[in-house]
Amino acid sequence: MAPWWSDEEWRELTAPDRCGMCADAHLEENEHSVLLGSTETTHVRLSRNQAHPGYALVILRVHETNLSDLSPDLLAAFWNDVQRAGRAIESVLGPKKIDYLVMGHRMPHLHCHLLPQHETDDPTRNVDISDGPLLLDDGELRDRAAALRSVWLRAAPPTERA
Amino acid sequence: MAPWWSDEEWRELTAPDRCGMCADAHLEENEHSVLLGSTETTHVRLSRNQAHPGYALVILRVHETNLSDLSPDLLAAFWNDVQRAGRAIESVLGPKKIDYLVMGHRMPHLHCHLLPQHETDDPTRNVDISDGPLLLDDGELRDRAAALRSVWLRAAPPTERA
Repeated sequence: MAPWWSDEEWRELTAPDRCGMCADAHLEENEHSVLLGSTETTHVRLSRNQAHPGYALVILRVHETNLSDLSPDLLAAFWNDVQRAGRAIESVLGPKKIDYLVMGHRMPHLHCHLLPQHETDDPTRNVDISDGPLLLDDGELRDRAAALRSVWLRAAPPTERA
Repeated sequence: MAPWWSDEEWRELTAPDRCGMCADAHLEENEHSVLLGSTETTHVRLSRNQAHPGYALVILRVHETNLSDLSPDLLAAFWNDVQRAGRAIESVLGPKKIDYLVMGHRMPHLHCHLLPQHETDDPTRNVDISDGPLLLDDGELRDRAAALRSVWLRAAPPTERA
């Protein structure tokens, strides 16, 4: 009767060997998003749904499903990568604000949604990552990804630069 | 015509000398929440709205309104405090999951909502911090705060213990 997932359902959602994000977070393109780049800690992806221009995800490489389980170093590295992605979005798309949302009810593998709010967004409305969808054509999506990737790469720490 | 705040409105919302969180985040009790404890970096507060049992906030002490502006040390310390608060909620209230939400459209002073999801919550519903409100009576709120504070205090890093 409980609306939350049953224990059995949750075990399936959290099982590493069935995790959809483990399977596709590193791919150049997948059903939901395109890769902007990867660090030692995360994959950074641009959502195909660009209802909020710049909407992106930062996905932990290792399969963890609870923020509580991260070591201090991994926690810091994850948020450092989120911050770096946010700065790239600010630089390229100039949003009014970015919301940083860690949820994962359907996909518990740890990831953060970077949901930009722009001039046309109502700040009093509840945030909703399912706004839209607004899908760009392939060229537009590629161009936006390239612009973000370029800025994101320039913000790499010295040790990660070629 | 733009639904987002005007530049003038945003300047007022982000101005440190008019910031409601700077004014009341450290108080034992305020209109919205009660203090669980404070670290060098943050104030940790239990929301009066307990529609999601354990709903809490971690509020940066210094007035910053953009995650991008935090130094690496401050960013790490902030998320370390968020993680510690989340662990206390897990220990005391046993939620199925905790959502970690940084938004602040109306109150840009940087803070993270820790919104627990319990067995009675529908995981497919969009998260909404305005669920409820469900207000406990004073004794219940005090008891819940005391239980969380006790666990939270025990998780203090050695340097912060009395």
